[in-house]
Order: sequence, then C-alpha cells, then structure tokens
Amino acid sequence: MIGLQKSLLDAFGHLPTMVAGEVWLVGAGPGSVGNLSLLAVHALGQANVVIHDALVSPEILSLIPAGIEQISVGKRGGKKSATQGFIMDLLIERASQGQKVVRLKGGDPLVFGRGGEEAETLASAGIAVRIVPGMTSGIAGLTAAGLPATMRQHNQAIVLTTGHGAPDTPGMEWQALARTRIPIVLYMGMTQLERIAGELIAGGLAPDLRVAVVMDADTPRQRLLLSTLVRVAEEAREQGFAAPCIVMIGAYGALPAKGGQQP
Amino acid sequence: MIGLQKSLLDAFGHLPTMVAGEVWLVGAGPGSVGNLSLLAVHALGQANVVIHDALVSPEILSLIPAGIEQISVGKRGGKKSATQGFIMDLLIERASQGQKVVRLKGGDPLVFGRGGEEAETLASAGIAVRIVPGMTSGIAGLTAAGLPATMRQHNQAIVLTTGHGAPDTPGMEWQALARTRIPIVLYMGMTQLERIAGELIAGGLAPDLRVAVVMDADTPRQRLLLSTLVRVAEEAREQGFAAPCIVMIGAYGALPAKGGQQP
Repeated sequence: MIGLQKSLLDAFGHLPTMVAGEVWLVGAGPGSVGNLSLLAVHALGQANVVIHDALVSPEILSLIPAGIEQISVGKRGGKKSATQGFIMDLLIERASQGQKVVRLKGGDPLVFGRGGEEAETLASAGIAVRIVPGMTSGIAGLTAAGLPATMRQHNQAIVLTTGHGAPDTPGMEWQALARTRIPIVLYMGMTQLERIAGELIAGGLAPDLRVAVVMDADTPRQRLLLSTLVRVAEEAREQGFAAPCIVMIGAYGALPAKGGQQP
Repeated sequence: MIGLQKSLLDAFGHLPTMVAGEVWLVGAGPGSVGNLSLLAVHALGQANVVIHDALVSPEILSLIPAGIEQISVGKRGGKKSATQGFIMDLLIERASQGQKVVRLKGGDPLVFGRGGEEAETLASAGIAVRIVPGMTSGIAGLTAAGLPATMRQHNQAIVLTTGHGAPDTPGMEWQALARTRIPIVLYMGMTQLERIAGELIAGGLAPDLRVAVVMDADTPRQRLLLSTLVRVAEEAREQGFAAPCIVMIGAYGALPAKGGQQP
C-alpha cells in the first residue's frame, strides 16, 4: 500500500489544522480502531490534551501518543463521572490557556452525545469549535454484531432513540412510535428497557418481535443477545448485559458477512 | 504527530487483511477524505479492483493509487447506471478469479445502501464478505452543513428514511410517522419530496416546520437550503437542488461550530 500511504500523507496535509485555543469535539466511533476516521486521527495527532468519556474504548485510547495529556471524565469501575458543568469548565479553562483541546466521545458527538449543547456553551464563551463526526454505535456497532440497520426488503426507515431524555423535555411517545412499525435502535436504554418494551407492546408491537442486544459493540469484548420484546429485559438482566449496550427492536436476522474489523 | 504515526502503523498491522477471492463492501462516508475510516483506507490499500457507485466523491476516489483498477457502476453525467444484476455478476466474476474486490459505496453500506442484499447474494455464491461501515450521509453530511442530528433539549430520537422503497414492499406510512413528531432525515427523496411533504402535513406536521436540504454534503460543492415543509419542494426545484441531497425535516437551527473538515 505504498501508493496509498503517499496519497494519505497528501490527504492529511489537506485536513484542517488545530489552532491554539480551539476545542474539537471528536467522535471516536463505536469501539474499533478501524472505525476511527482520518480526521479524528488527525485531531489526536495535534492535541495538547485529550478529554475523554467512558464510552471511548481502550483500543482507541491506546493510539494516543504518550506525550499527550489524557483526562478521563467518564465513570468507570464504580467511580462517579464528572458533572457536565465540570467538563465544560475544564474545556473552557484549557482552551483559554491556548491549548489545542480534543474532547473525545464514544460514537458520534451529535447522536445523543451532547455535542450540540457543548458547542453552544463553548461558543458562548468565545471559543472556536469544530465537530468531527464519528460512526454512531447504533449503526456501525450493529454491523460489528452482524445486524443490518436497514434491509431493502424489510425496512425503509430506522429510528435512532435514547432511553435517557433530558429531564425537562417531554418524553418519547413510545406508543406512537410503535404504530409506525419502524425498527428501533435504542441507545442507553438498559435501565429503562422493561418500561420501554411494555410501552411498545401497548402501542401494538408483537410481544414476540425479535430484539437484539449488543454489549461492548465493536470491541473484542462484544456480546450479542437475541431475544424477543416481551422477554428481553429479563434475559438481559439474567445474562449480565449492562451499559454500554445497543438494543435493536425489530431485528430481522444475521448478515452473512463479517462486520467492521471483527475476526 | 510522529508518535501517532507509529501508533497508526501498528494499528494498521492489527486490522484484518484482505484474502484473495473476498469482497469487501466498504462505506466511503458522505464525501470528505477526513470522514473516511481507517479500515476503509486499509481496504483501498489492498484491493486489486475498486468498483464504485456515483455517490462516492471525487475527493475519495483520488486517494486510490494509480495501479489499482477502478470501475464505475453509477450513473454520472446522464449515462445510465449499471443494473444491480450486472454489478453482482461483476463482483462474483472478479472474486471467483481470486481478486481482492472492494465495492465502494457512498455513506454506509447498511443504511439504504443495499449492503445486506449484496452480502446475501455473494454469500449464496460462496464468496466471503466483509462489510466495512462508513459514516452515513444523513448524520455526518448534516454535520458538515452545521445541522445537528440530535440536540438534547429538542429531540430524543431521529428517523432515517428513504424516499425510494423496494417496489414490492409496503410503502412508508408517512402519516403515522408524522404523528410521532420525531425529526426525519430523508435520503434519496428529491423526486418524491412534494408528495412526502404533503403526506407529512396531512399527518399533522406544521406546514411551516423548518426543513433543510443539503446537496453534495461534505464536499467543496456543498449547498444548503433552509425552507419550510410546505415550500421546500418548490424552492428546491427553483434553486436547482437535485440528487444527491439529504433533507432534514424538523431542523432546529445551526451549530455554532465547523463540521467535519469544512473550512
């Protein structure tokens, strides 16, 4: 791949350069190094400090060169995570000192990743922001488990949703969603799974509708549970499926293919 | 970024290797080189032949080393695109000759990209397949135009859908979808936009609901139209917006940030 390496070096040269005092909100994708983007790699290679949450995989973190400061602001191993206010203060402080700051997030910053809100807060503080997309776990993480988000003969749409809404906004209307019959990909839904499944059944989805749960998607620790809407909450609990998980409701089978860099 | 380059070379060494006779269905993302994944780059560096559709940007195609055969199977400049049957025969023929075949698609192969169907056909022919995710245009393409797919205070879900369903499957129930009030990202919807907007209004969405259209998202040719549900089809036509476009219905404003590698 000599020719490609040369093309790539050229390509990196055309990517934007981090400026002192900027914050880049960077999506790390679901877990594997292969699913990381070139622009994310370019950001990690320029940062003075990388501030990451608990959803960024150790495989991705291991790429960060030793000389770059890393700060974890996610909960891990029972420790409490930093508050959103603490994180924003830290980002503003480091950027105001003229550092090149990467805020590294699992998945995509704008798919249930608070990237928009963080950009607004930073912009209000006069800090320049760039959002670097990442592959979202609810698509690329499913692929790693052999589950297609869409199949032409089965679904013409897919809903991405989260079990955790903002506290002061109206909740999801799960029954109205059920009536669309569109397959649902649920992020951060494990603690709410029993309630959400009940609402969807009340809205008309079949209790025996197929549901897949992928834990630690797109990592060597990936686990897959195939269940049904009425049984999934109990089976997931019994089998120790806990965050981070992606739940696909209305799963229609396994791809006859490897997904991402899975062996 | 010396340390990172070393990490990356190590990382490439751990990515899966293409085997003679395999087909990899590779997502190229929405357009920019920065949004390309490491695994996609790794695939392009190993392929004997790259068979690509019209949705892959010239910026991405320019990365492919000169020694690798490229075959375009998409329509471009008025020429008719190859049929799906022709494409499958070509993939099977080349793989059966022992070539390492990359089928390069715009966006993500499993988000309205026929990746699942192609994997099934190839597997039926005894060919080993790997699906390499790409960033989907309906998320990363919106980011490039400054539009967030989700914002915590606004939406707890997003629907990805296409205006083109398979001919022999039941169509989308647009009115049921409208009743969920979930923002909608529409792929390949320009020829159907007037009809779909009418159905959504009939389902209860406000005629003055904000709608954004992004043409050639995440490329230097990117154009953005901000309109409303009742006016968007006419305004898009008047202003020359045509495929490839992403339409976001229920757009709630502009990010105070740069998106992807946009200047």
